[in-house]
Amino acid sequence: MRGQHQSSYTVSIHYDWRLYREDIAGSIAHARMLARQKILSIEDRDVLIKGLTKIREEIESGEFPWRHELEDIHMNIEARLYELIGEPAGRLHTARSRNDQVATDLRLYLLRVTDETNELISQFQKVLLHSAESHMDVVMPGYTHLQRAQPILLAHHILAYFHMLNRDRSRFQQVRNSADVLPLGSGALAGVPYLLDREFVARELGFTKISSNSMDAVSDRDFVIEYLSASSIMMMHVSRLAEELVLWSSAEFGFVHFSDEHTTGSSIMPQKRNPDIAELARGRSGRVFGHLMGLLAVLKGLPLTYNRDLQEDKEGLFDTIDTVQNTLKALTESFAGLEFKVATMRDAADKSYSLATDIADYLVGKGIPFRRAHGIVNALVRTAEATKKGLSEMTLEEYQAFSPLFGTDIFKVTLDSSLAARDVHGGTAPQRVKEALREAWRIVSDTES
Amino acid sequence: MRGQHQSSYTVSIHYDWRLYREDIAGSIAHARMLARQKILSIEDRDVLIKGLTKIREEIESGEFPWRHELEDIHMNIEARLYELIGEPAGRLHTARSRNDQVATDLRLYLLRVTDETNELISQFQKVLLHSAESHMDVVMPGYTHLQRAQPILLAHHILAYFHMLNRDRSRFQQVRNSADVLPLGSGALAGVPYLLDREFVARELGFTKISSNSMDAVSDRDFVIEYLSASSIMMMHVSRLAEELVLWSSAEFGFVHFSDEHTTGSSIMPQKRNPDIAELARGRSGRVFGHLMGLLAVLKGLPLTYNRDLQEDKEGLFDTIDTVQNTLKALTESFAGLEFKVATMRDAADKSYSLATDIADYLVGKGIPFRRAHGIVNALVRTAEATKKGLSEMTLEEYQAFSPLFGTDIFKVTLDSSLAARDVHGGTAPQRVKEALREAWRIVSDTES
Amino acid sequence: MRGQHQSSYTVSIHYDWRLYREDIAGSIAHARMLARQKILSIEDRDVLIKGLTKIREEIESGEFPWRHELEDIHMNIEARLYELIGEPAGRLHTARSRNDQVATDLRLYLLRVTDETNELISQFQKVLLHSAESHMDVVMPGYTHLQRAQPILLAHHILAYFHMLNRDRSRFQQVRNSADVLPLGSGALAGVPYLLDREFVARELGFTKISSNSMDAVSDRDFVIEYLSASSIMMMHVSRLAEELVLWSSAEFGFVHFSDEHTTGSSIMPQKRNPDIAELARGRSGRVFGHLMGLLAVLKGLPLTYNRDLQEDKEGLFDTIDTVQNTLKALTESFAGLEFKVATMRDAADKSYSLATDIADYLVGKGIPFRRAHGIVNALVRTAEATKKGLSEMTLEEYQAFSPLFGTDIFKVTLDSSLAARDVHGGTAPQRVKEALREAWRIVSDTES
Amino acid sequence: MRGQHQSSYTVSIHYDWRLYREDIAGSIAHARMLARQKILSIEDRDVLIKGLTKIREEIESGEFPWRHELEDIHMNIEARLYELIGEPAGRLHTARSRNDQVATDLRLYLLRVTDETNELISQFQKVLLHSAESHMDVVMPGYTHLQRAQPILLAHHILAYFHMLNRDRSRFQQVRNSADVLPLGSGALAGVPYLLDREFVARELGFTKISSNSMDAVSDRDFVIEYLSASSIMMMHVSRLAEELVLWSSAEFGFVHFSDEHTTGSSIMPQKRNPDIAELARGRSGRVFGHLMGLLAVLKGLPLTYNRDLQEDKEGLFDTIDTVQNTLKALTESFAGLEFKVATMRDAADKSYSLATDIADYLVGKGIPFRRAHGIVNALVRTAEATKKGLSEMTLEEYQAFSPLFGTDIFKVTLDSSLAARDVHGGTAPQRVKEALREAWRIVSDTES
Repeated sequence: MRGQHQSSYTVSIHYDWRLYREDIAGSIAHARMLARQKILSIEDRDVLIKGLTKIREEIESGEFPWRHELEDIHMNIEARLYELIGEPAGRLHTARSRNDQVATDLRLYLLRVTDETNELISQFQKVLLHSAESHMDVVMPGYTHLQRAQPILLAHHILAYFHMLNRDRSRFQQVRNSADVLPLGSGALAGVPYLLDREFVARELGFTKISSNSMDAVSDRDFVIEYLSASSIMMMHVSRLAEELVLWSSAEFGFVHFSDEHTTGSSIMPQKRNPDIAELARGRSGRVFGHLMGLLAVLKGLPLTYNRDLQEDKEGLFDTIDTVQNTLKALTESFAGLEFKVATMRDAADKSYSLATDIADYLVGKGIPFRRAHGIVNALVRTAEATKKGLSEMTLEEYQAFSPLFGTDIFKVTLDSSLAARDVHGGTAPQRVKEALREAWRIVSDTES
Repeated sequence: MRGQHQSSYTVSIHYDWRLYREDIAGSIAHARMLARQKILSIEDRDVLIKGLTKIREEIESGEFPWRHELEDIHMNIEARLYELIGEPAGRLHTARSRNDQVATDLRLYLLRVTDETNELISQFQKVLLHSAESHMDVVMPGYTHLQRAQPILLAHHILAYFHMLNRDRSRFQQVRNSADVLPLGSGALAGVPYLLDREFVARELGFTKISSNSMDAVSDRDFVIEYLSASSIMMMHVSRLAEELVLWSSAEFGFVHFSDEHTTGSSIMPQKRNPDIAELARGRSGRVFGHLMGLLAVLKGLPLTYNRDLQEDKEGLFDTIDTVQNTLKALTESFAGLEFKVATMRDAADKSYSLATDIADYLVGKGIPFRRAHGIVNALVRTAEATKKGLSEMTLEEYQAFSPLFGTDIFKVTLDSSLAARDVHGGTAPQRVKEALREAWRIVSDTES
Repeated sequence: MRGQHQSSYTVSIHYDWRLYREDIAGSIAHARMLARQKILSIEDRDVLIKGLTKIREEIESGEFPWRHELEDIHMNIEARLYELIGEPAGRLHTARSRNDQVATDLRLYLLRVTDETNELISQFQKVLLHSAESHMDVVMPGYTHLQRAQPILLAHHILAYFHMLNRDRSRFQQVRNSADVLPLGSGALAGVPYLLDREFVARELGFTKISSNSMDAVSDRDFVIEYLSASSIMMMHVSRLAEELVLWSSAEFGFVHFSDEHTTGSSIMPQKRNPDIAELARGRSGRVFGHLMGLLAVLKGLPLTYNRDLQEDKEGLFDTIDTVQNTLKALTESFAGLEFKVATMRDAADKSYSLATDIADYLVGKGIPFRRAHGIVNALVRTAEATKKGLSEMTLEEYQAFSPLFGTDIFKVTLDSSLAARDVHGGTAPQRVKEALREAWRIVSDTES
Repeated sequence: MRGQHQSSYTVSIHYDWRLYREDIAGSIAHARMLARQKILSIEDRDVLIKGLTKIREEIESGEFPWRHELEDIHMNIEARLYELIGEPAGRLHTARSRNDQVATDLRLYLLRVTDETNELISQFQKVLLHSAESHMDVVMPGYTHLQRAQPILLAHHILAYFHMLNRDRSRFQQVRNSADVLPLGSGALAGVPYLLDREFVARELGFTKISSNSMDAVSDRDFVIEYLSASSIMMMHVSRLAEELVLWSSAEFGFVHFSDEHTTGSSIMPQKRNPDIAELARGRSGRVFGHLMGLLAVLKGLPLTYNRDLQEDKEGLFDTIDTVQNTLKALTESFAGLEFKVATMRDAADKSYSLATDIADYLVGKGIPFRRAHGIVNALVRTAEATKKGLSEMTLEEYQAFSPLFGTDIFKVTLDSSLAARDVHGGTAPQRVKEALREAWRIVSDTES
């Protein structure tokens, strides 16, 4: 008998209970297949399925007698099954090992989780699209190096995040595809000495592929790392958006105003309205990166096949799933409640030298190479800065001091002309952004059908 | 003029010179498109292409005058182009920013690198398949927890790695697909004020898609993280194989013998034949994990669009590419030179209690539930161990002391019967392994056509 | 009022309840100081202390009414205090912000935790020393590259881990020293507008230093990273020991036998005795590395001072503390139950070519340079291997075929002579190991006084 | 003979050449000791030292004939020594293994590097102190959550970084202390069979301690991880400062102006002055975190003693050293060239509601508990915001609408009164900051003596 202490070191029931649904579904499918293959009697099958169904009901109604000393979800269910139906419970383990069972549970679980995650991404994308749509005429400075660079449409900026999330969705779809392989039938490592119908089990559980090498099947956790990796990239995207929300809600930028329920006050400073949701979303990318790194380190250098180290594949994964999903929910709600300060945004674009590129392009239009035009406008801007003048406040003479090619049409270079000129696929010209928005709605709708 | 020191902090030419081919190809395609769109004259186009082609030749012949103070590959090429062709060089920068240029270079580079990496994986897979094929009758113990578990075929074990590498190849293919988007035309962040034909440039360079949002396009490095992530998983697989090679070449296992050129001696111990290649391959997984983590940290929390932090996307990537490719080459060569000690392997399977599961399954065949059979055989093994007897050395009476169901047919449970019984898709039964091998050859051949 | 969802995203009470003791101690010390400085009346102080003491008792007896919607430990205690004592509860927040309060709690907590961790390290060290002591005459092969290299004493091998743990203890002591700075009095970020006696609070709580810059004090989490870093190194050490235990308990090595309560069976293979504790200890290093990486990523690029991202400083820390402490306990118990197979160990040293270095040194003693002696013995070993002879089985003539300098005294080169010859500080000569053991006991005793 | 390819996989000379000085110094000290112990003749010693000294000169003058095929620095030096002095070169390897040699080199190298790093930290600290000193009267808003919180002195803000760097310096000092242990004399793993004087070698090389366990000594890389960990924390600090510089140099904040040589222009946007140095410094924290993670993964699960995986301890370390030192230099120079826009800073403090806490404290002074005062001022600020009034623009009647306790003395609550009130150790009161500055100068001076 194992002592108290060891028990606590090897116990996993406090987190692997999450797999109960998949564990039971896997056992039912296994029992059905065994009966189909005459390895199990019809009577035993029915008794087993009844017992397992009862256990699922007990768990979902909160009546299941969890026993910490049984260590994991599999032993908890197995022991309860014995209590409920006696000897036939033992037959369920024919042609199955814990090694292929746990791999099956985890894969089945990820099939569901990736679908859920992608549904949450779609929800978030729709909020972004609604926001872009209702701010189609809002101009703001686009930034590089956090310096005002060129005027853009807010909608264009928002669509950049739509596209990041779109890639995230596609990555989670790939993860789903990687998880979609049934390992059951691999036994402990070598296969099992029974004539199984693995394809039948796969169909029952919703897998479209079965594993091709039993040793690989029980020790492969690539799909878990892939989930962590896709999540890390998604959280990295989220952290960028969150950073922008923190910046934009600062007094200095003043571009957005969070609704009250998405900010927090301070215990000491009565005036504070802190963007806590955004800060937490930004910060929580760290833990997801950490879980990815942790699992890579766990798997590194393990000989085949199953090693107990693999038990470490779950806690980080579960925490990642929660983090990803809760962050998506929180940001979706927060973003929906954002108020954009459109006058401040336009003003910021207007008062800066963000039209400098357009002026250089104006000169290119007059026939000089871009590199030289760039030099001329650079000098012009430095002079304007020194005299604290905006570009639109300069006279034609002042312009011509830098190049005789300047004519009165220089004053037609405006925020709106600048935007309109970026009339290229993917550019910020209003017409292009409208098209991009239509295309984005189409993409997000496709995911639903 | 920038000072000495700053220069050295911002310089990247010592690693980004690698992109010269892509940078030049991108510029040529850009020039062609500009001329096609009448933004550039035919004469200028031809002069530009001639100059760029000359520069590529200079670089490849080692005659290019690299200048550290020009900081990066783009400035080096640009400055040289001015020297060679004068003023028209300046026109090349029409409708292009460094931001979309560098993103284009890096994506183009990864299209090539992913293909190369996958070719190396295929080479390694073929060596594995040849090895499996020529050892089809070699039996060894399969391990779980590094304890002998059940007999398996060496070929089955080797095929497990084939399948890992197959997933790796598929992941690099996905990375290629992610990289396969042309950003050129996005300008600095907002698009460019010229009527470009982005699809033409894409075709010229071998891209099949063009980017849909200019702000996203210049700040997206997902494809780099994906390469690092796919590489981390591949190196994790490699570290597992390397660990096994280290174990197997130890005196204790004695399963393999490295050829002399794949071991190293000791400076002090004259008898040593150390498996250095395998150890280095195992160790080098660490650096790749580190590069993945490093880039995630770099990108975390960056506001849109381009920030200079993004310069950090290259060095870790380049080192990862080298590590992945050199490790594949080194292991492919090492593995090809391995000598398997087949008698030792079979002996290890034979002398262990690795048939215990089969004996339990024998009892299941006699009608008792698996869980009970497991208990009986456990007691039997403990007794055998205590008396230092192998299972095949026990008499029928000794067997029957544990269960009256044992009959003389228990002696038909052998290594070979055990293997043959795992006759399930993915199992170690010789017939199944042969089929798996045929399928594997088919897969690897498909990659070549 | 905050909605349901946001509440759950910002909630931390499920993990920060752990700080209740420190939070209450901090509040009591703060109240005492406020009264001492006449900022609070004696009556209010006494009421506050009584209320806080009552709350601690409620928590420890399980009667405390935890409220999830109050989000964190501070708000739970504060709200309960209002319920218990009314208005005076509000005075406790005079001259204190949540920012300096939470930093104080966490530092105080780490003072205790580092002491506990070091006590567990000492316990483990003692078990190692007892084991070394009772196996002083056990010879085994020492390994480099997992190849048998030179004979060593098992006690010498065990002492290597003693020294690693000793450095770990010293690092945790440094972490304690880093944590030992009182931030209370820093307010939200700028200090507080009251005449406080910060030194008094420090003394009350057991801190020996007070912070020197309020902005740094509320945003500094270096001490948490230091704990994670020291833990990562310790877990790396543990993973090395665990790897050796896994190797040594394999059939191939056969060096150790775990007691039954420290192994686990298999669900399918009746013969298995798996070293699960060691495997888990090895695997759990991964999660600690991950937490370290995660927190570095969280803190990267945060502007001063407090940002809500800092809430992410706790969960990974708490999980690390549990992992470190539970791993130390589990390994201490496992190691104490190990049975060493001393005959197998000696046999492994004896049958290998681990005396090759000594033979080269023998030749050096005869006057030839080491590099040449190395070459001679290398040739000798290759010949012996080819003829499957041990070095002790070779005749003098066979030796002399490689060098005429060999004399009959070559047969005095034995395992024991080899050990005895390593008579240098830190070497494996029995006398040196005995001294090292005495010194080790002295070190571990010093930690207790 | 090893083939071309393997050679390139195991080669390290392209980075470990850096250890040439330490390798030669170690060999000279070893030779001296051998002669002192009569293991080597005086003549051989002198020849060896002469040869080694010559090699150092060759390397430093660029005349050394590096040979890639010799793989590492040790073999390059050894082979050259044979060329220069013949047979006696072989005697240098008496009583020394590559394993203890390389560990010695790396430790010796880190003794020097930690000193250099700390000198650079001190230089940076002095620049910070000069800057604080010359801006003693500059008021700015202090931030929490990137929201203006309370007024502070710029000097106080700068001093926060001084203290972070001070902890960094202390950590590098601890790393130095960890590195300061001589492993030479440990041999390959077991000690050496010669009567060495290890203490003598230690003194010659500047080590103050010698290693106590030979097996630990050749496989211990804790000191390298410690360097990477201390560097990660330092780079995290730097990334925070860099983030602030990026924010402060944005148009929105407008707090600082980089001198021209510390910004870069844009290839396309003529107006840009990008804070590239700060961005790179922020981004380069990522690579250092990655190297830390990489080495932890490398070391995880390695059995004793030396394994070739340990070769991976150097490249990440060397890159970290360069990154840390170049970043310190670049930031020191950049910071020295910063121009603070002091009017903008004060204005930002003035126009915000950053005095709200002071007003709450004013009410506490009138006798009401802090929590209630906080509520009153919160309401007051919300009303002021709604009417777009600053707090100083409100009339007494308007104040009294929120509490009858407000009197005319409320108008004495100003930026300056707020600062002055934070008169606590570590607070932002001008007098306290002056004291803190004096103390800081004292600390930094102490490091020089």
